[in-house]
Amino acid sequence: MNLDQSNEMTAVIKEKPAKGAKVITKKIPTDIEPHEVLIKVLATSVCGTDFHIYNWDEWSQNRIKPPLTVGHEFAGEIVKVGDHVKRLKEGDIVSAETHIVCNDCDFCRSGQGHICQETQIIGVDTDGCFAEYMKMPAENCIINDPTVDPKFLCIQEPLGNAVHTMLHFDITAKTTAVVGCGPIGLMAVNVAKVVGAGKIIAIEINEYRRNLAKELGADVVINPLEENVVERVLEETGGIGVDVIGEFSGNKMAIEQAFKYVKLGGKMSMLGIPNHKIELDLANDVVFKGITIYGVVGRKMYDTWHQVQGLIKRLDLDKVVTHTLPLTKVDEAMDIMASGNSGKVVLIPTKSE
Amino acid sequence: MNLDQSNEMTAVIKEKPAKGAKVITKKIPTDIEPHEVLIKVLATSVCGTDFHIYNWDEWSQNRIKPPLTVGHEFAGEIVKVGDHVKRLKEGDIVSAETHIVCNDCDFCRSGQGHICQETQIIGVDTDGCFAEYMKMPAENCIINDPTVDPKFLCIQEPLGNAVHTMLHFDITAKTTAVVGCGPIGLMAVNVAKVVGAGKIIAIEINEYRRNLAKELGADVVINPLEENVVERVLEETGGIGVDVIGEFSGNKMAIEQAFKYVKLGGKMSMLGIPNHKIELDLANDVVFKGITIYGVVGRKMYDTWHQVQGLIKRLDLDKVVTHTLPLTKVDEAMDIMASGNSGKVVLIPTKSE
Amino acid sequence: MNLDQSNEMTAVIKEKPAKGAKVITKKIPTDIEPHEVLIKVLATSVCGTDFHIYNWDEWSQNRIKPPLTVGHEFAGEIVKVGDHVKRLKEGDIVSAETHIVCNDCDFCRSGQGHICQETQIIGVDTDGCFAEYMKMPAENCIINDPTVDPKFLCIQEPLGNAVHTMLHFDITAKTTAVVGCGPIGLMAVNVAKVVGAGKIIAIEINEYRRNLAKELGADVVINPLEENVVERVLEETGGIGVDVIGEFSGNKMAIEQAFKYVKLGGKMSMLGIPNHKIELDLANDVVFKGITIYGVVGRKMYDTWHQVQGLIKRLDLDKVVTHTLPLTKVDEAMDIMASGNSGKVVLIPTKSE
Amino acid sequence: MNLDQSNEMTAVIKEKPAKGAKVITKKIPTDIEPHEVLIKVLATSVCGTDFHIYNWDEWSQNRIKPPLTVGHEFAGEIVKVGDHVKRLKEGDIVSAETHIVCNDCDFCRSGQGHICQETQIIGVDTDGCFAEYMKMPAENCIINDPTVDPKFLCIQEPLGNAVHTMLHFDITAKTTAVVGCGPIGLMAVNVAKVVGAGKIIAIEINEYRRNLAKELGADVVINPLEENVVERVLEETGGIGVDVIGEFSGNKMAIEQAFKYVKLGGKMSMLGIPNHKIELDLANDVVFKGITIYGVVGRKMYDTWHQVQGLIKRLDLDKVVTHTLPLTKVDEAMDIMASGNSGKVVLIPTKSE
Repeated sequence: MNLDQSNEMTAVIKEKPAKGAKVITKKIPTDIEPHEVLIKVLATSVCGTDFHIYNWDEWSQNRIKPPLTVGHEFAGEIVKVGDHVKRLKEGDIVSAETHIVCNDCDFCRSGQGHICQETQIIGVDTDGCFAEYMKMPAENCIINDPTVDPKFLCIQEPLGNAVHTMLHFDITAKTTAVVGCGPIGLMAVNVAKVVGAGKIIAIEINEYRRNLAKELGADVVINPLEENVVERVLEETGGIGVDVIGEFSGNKMAIEQAFKYVKLGGKMSMLGIPNHKIELDLANDVVFKGITIYGVVGRKMYDTWHQVQGLIKRLDLDKVVTHTLPLTKVDEAMDIMASGNSGKVVLIPTKSE
Repeated sequence: MNLDQSNEMTAVIKEKPAKGAKVITKKIPTDIEPHEVLIKVLATSVCGTDFHIYNWDEWSQNRIKPPLTVGHEFAGEIVKVGDHVKRLKEGDIVSAETHIVCNDCDFCRSGQGHICQETQIIGVDTDGCFAEYMKMPAENCIINDPTVDPKFLCIQEPLGNAVHTMLHFDITAKTTAVVGCGPIGLMAVNVAKVVGAGKIIAIEINEYRRNLAKELGADVVINPLEENVVERVLEETGGIGVDVIGEFSGNKMAIEQAFKYVKLGGKMSMLGIPNHKIELDLANDVVFKGITIYGVVGRKMYDTWHQVQGLIKRLDLDKVVTHTLPLTKVDEAMDIMASGNSGKVVLIPTKSE
Repeated sequence: MNLDQSNEMTAVIKEKPAKGAKVITKKIPTDIEPHEVLIKVLATSVCGTDFHIYNWDEWSQNRIKPPLTVGHEFAGEIVKVGDHVKRLKEGDIVSAETHIVCNDCDFCRSGQGHICQETQIIGVDTDGCFAEYMKMPAENCIINDPTVDPKFLCIQEPLGNAVHTMLHFDITAKTTAVVGCGPIGLMAVNVAKVVGAGKIIAIEINEYRRNLAKELGADVVINPLEENVVERVLEETGGIGVDVIGEFSGNKMAIEQAFKYVKLGGKMSMLGIPNHKIELDLANDVVFKGITIYGVVGRKMYDTWHQVQGLIKRLDLDKVVTHTLPLTKVDEAMDIMASGNSGKVVLIPTKSE
Repeated sequence: MNLDQSNEMTAVIKEKPAKGAKVITKKIPTDIEPHEVLIKVLATSVCGTDFHIYNWDEWSQNRIKPPLTVGHEFAGEIVKVGDHVKRLKEGDIVSAETHIVCNDCDFCRSGQGHICQETQIIGVDTDGCFAEYMKMPAENCIINDPTVDPKFLCIQEPLGNAVHTMLHFDITAKTTAVVGCGPIGLMAVNVAKVVGAGKIIAIEINEYRRNLAKELGADVVINPLEENVVERVLEETGGIGVDVIGEFSGNKMAIEQAFKYVKLGGKMSMLGIPNHKIELDLANDVVFKGITIYGVVGRKMYDTWHQVQGLIKRLDLDKVVTHTLPLTKVDEAMDIMASGNSGKVVLIPTKSE
């Protein structure tokens, strides 16, 4: 590798405990450990978490220690491999699981690394991928199909959330509701379509996203500000409710409604994070209904990634990625996110070589 | 069949909308349909539902239409079979699934008859088994092993609830908590033991039942009135919580505690019926924990019954049945139930022949 | 119902124990039982079984008792309902599960009616659907979406075989091989596509069917007469073999090859019926490979049908049905089947009203 | 650690390519890597593999490169930990998964390390545990309950084979056959008992082992040299066959019989390694029967070990371990194995300290 004479790169960092982000020049992290690789970032996308950190919300104030290079969704090219790395080589196009787990606890040792309690998250606990170069543990890297555009490859990590949520229960040939069509919910709609879900119902207040949900495969879209969601879903399902619900909103009212239109014996897969406690009529809405509820954490390592890779060419990712900007325009990207009028927003580091 | 010259029998009925039950003499129901059988009741046991009806609580006032012969848990001998019945014959010792389902709806047609919405329950919607004779649809009857004592066979129906709840998730070699050790919870403890659960923790306020839980296989018993349940369960599980919880109490506080000591990635199977709404910290106790929750309705038709029959000789039913009385002593049976100092209470119709 | 003044209809029967079929006029079977319905057949399709009966092969000689109206795949309109029928009404467009099961055995009573040993098959053991009218037990009828063309609805029964075979194991995002692309194998390819299988590999000797497989979703087609199947499949899967195999050929060599290119830990779902014993290297091809093998019988009642109904609008049935003829041209239909150059062949009864 | 002044230990090695084993004195392997631990062996047991190596059979001749310290089943105390080891500490009583896998391939990365193709086996590919001390990768070590006797802890590895085989399919409340009651089959019988299998049928030619099977929980034992196995199993199961079969014999005839007495829709879990190809009537014995077959490789890492640990106090390991000898009496141990009149044979290294 002959990285760059200057050994410097552009990066987007959270410089201090306040709103905003700063574009800076910093040293390329070439000091990789024997089990790490150095990656040239080809594309990165903006997560809701990045948006929270940018806006310095309460969660960020408690978790983030500036200065920190943010960002965790990416696709890049390996430019250097550590001495002990066998599976990867220079030139591989990779993305990565962003949860760096301990591999030592009972969860990690029984295929449940996604709930490891010693997890470090890149771009949150360690420097992330809003930069031209980054380092990663080799173990976390997934080798991509190099024929797919990096701007689609970089969104596999949140796509993995959508896949984990939607495929935990079998939705093939089943009626399905996607509650909340932010970027992950939108991908969930598309996942439902490509795995042959029956009627797909998307519930979302933002018109731009409802329209996008429709393009991505929703058979029915509902605006909860204008329609009685429970009545409409029951009407669309012959009065019996939906078989499987993917919950992405974290909205108290939306969740309480979902318990009313899930079918008897139905399933709820919950990814959205509510800010408040939920009042649950456990007797009538869970016990007597015989339903099953599953809490979704991250992506299964690495089963979810294998699913993502098996589906990536079947999905309409060109519709999911609605905006592509240079990395330096991070402020503009955050404005687009704030508007709600977007799918995934992709940033491209632009170092000339 | 040469039933009885008088064609009369003793039965326990709810005569009018008020507390209590009445022992009467009434006609044997010999008018069976082509798909029904007539059964001589050998033993019957008292369910919490029977106790509610006896005490004429709010639920009973809304659901029960006196006069009605109560009771639904039984074992008996077939004394007459309808013209279309093929699987059963006179002399068979049977028990029965007490939910008479429609066989016509999508639930019934996909192995989910336990959530059929057209269900009729014997002893609630139709005359039940607190009598010397009763009729049943042949379909609902389960042919028993005649070498097992009827006073154990009669409790298979509630045992099925315990089995459905405890075996929905795999508990073999897993740490397991049974919350609430009424008669069904007590059977659940015993089921956990005979299927090789790891450490079995039983939580119950009544001392008699805690002692019985211990005899039936609980490795640890906790009295929530005297101990901090969450702390104790964590202590007993190396700080990580239990793998699987069977919830039988319906108690708001007990349920809210259970969400705190279930392990990450753990499972909760819920049969108890709460009277009140639950306040659920969905973010921290479900989503981030990655747990699965299942609402239990009745028994799977007839998978649960097959499981019950496969386990019946392995269980300690002689310890589960703590009291056996003549059917005519129904008031005494209800007093025993009211005391809380019992496992299952069995009643024996005593017709001399 | 005012069926037809003559009360006569056209039907295709096996008249005597010899090759061929006869188009005759016979009485409409209006004598329906309380649990049956009378159906006006709108479209029917030709199964391999019908072809065997037509050609009077060894199996047919042992099983079929002429005279018999053949055929079992259909869609039709209910024109009369028996006295006890509740779920269906005149005017409903239905298809039917062709296995009439006992509902009384342990298999039927535990959701495994597809392996009931008392099964009667329509068009084999009782008069079938190559006729203008037929009677069916109400229980077996599936209510169709009336907006779908009957010539597609009639193939749901064999489509159910494809669905049962392909969806028994999870194939979403997995590499998948379909071995043998007769009509059911062709539908299997299409099912794999609409449920989001990863690379789909179809293996078939007939060029017409290989081309059709390609149109229906196969990413790779292999002609075993021209290529080394094991080498090619390994090449297409990075040397590791396919995740899941659907076996539809019943061909000894094809099956023995499949054991060689199934991935370690892979799955095989077997519907094809071999004429000969298979020589199996159980140590190397099953035990050390850690694979799972599943034998497929018919369709699950009625889970498979619910899956079929959930998928029917996602599938390319217009490509699956390659020929449509009047019912009276049954000889021509059989010639087309014999050529191998077809997908499903549909017959339309043409009674003018 | 102050191991031993001499830094020497007793070990049993395969010295040269010929029958037999040699007891020697060799250096204690104190040169451990950062991810390894040094273990003082407290008890070790004899596997069929050790017996094959001792007898220098064809498989051994192709696989083993003398000189090699043999043995892989053990329990021991950690006396030294490598610099990077976090989960383990000196004094821990451990056993170990004997398959050292690559952690890098797709199988390892999706919870299927048991079929990793880069597996190294201790005592086969690297020095094993028939010695006073041995080194192991920390990752492979399982921390034992120190209150259990090491002579029971050392058999957890083959017990894991029994557990993996018997618990892959649900056997609780199901009729179960164990084919072949060598040491692993015997443990399988006991596993079936403690997880609440229904009737347990054990098939074995050796009288000593049939008697032991009976003590360990078999309800029925069959000697295939004296009885028609198929007829007897059908008789014991009401003519319908067993729900689940665990195959441990690898015997061609026993396997072919098993396909005849497995129930429709039944399951077969196969661990035994046949020397010859099997002739399989795939049509009648697999497809039409709707059965499922699973090939068992080793133990799931580390789910099977967690199951073993959850069950260890419920099992009758005092009956499973029939012989305990000093390590130096390895020849005698092999003679006992050869006789067939044993359960597990345990060896105890006897270094005085």
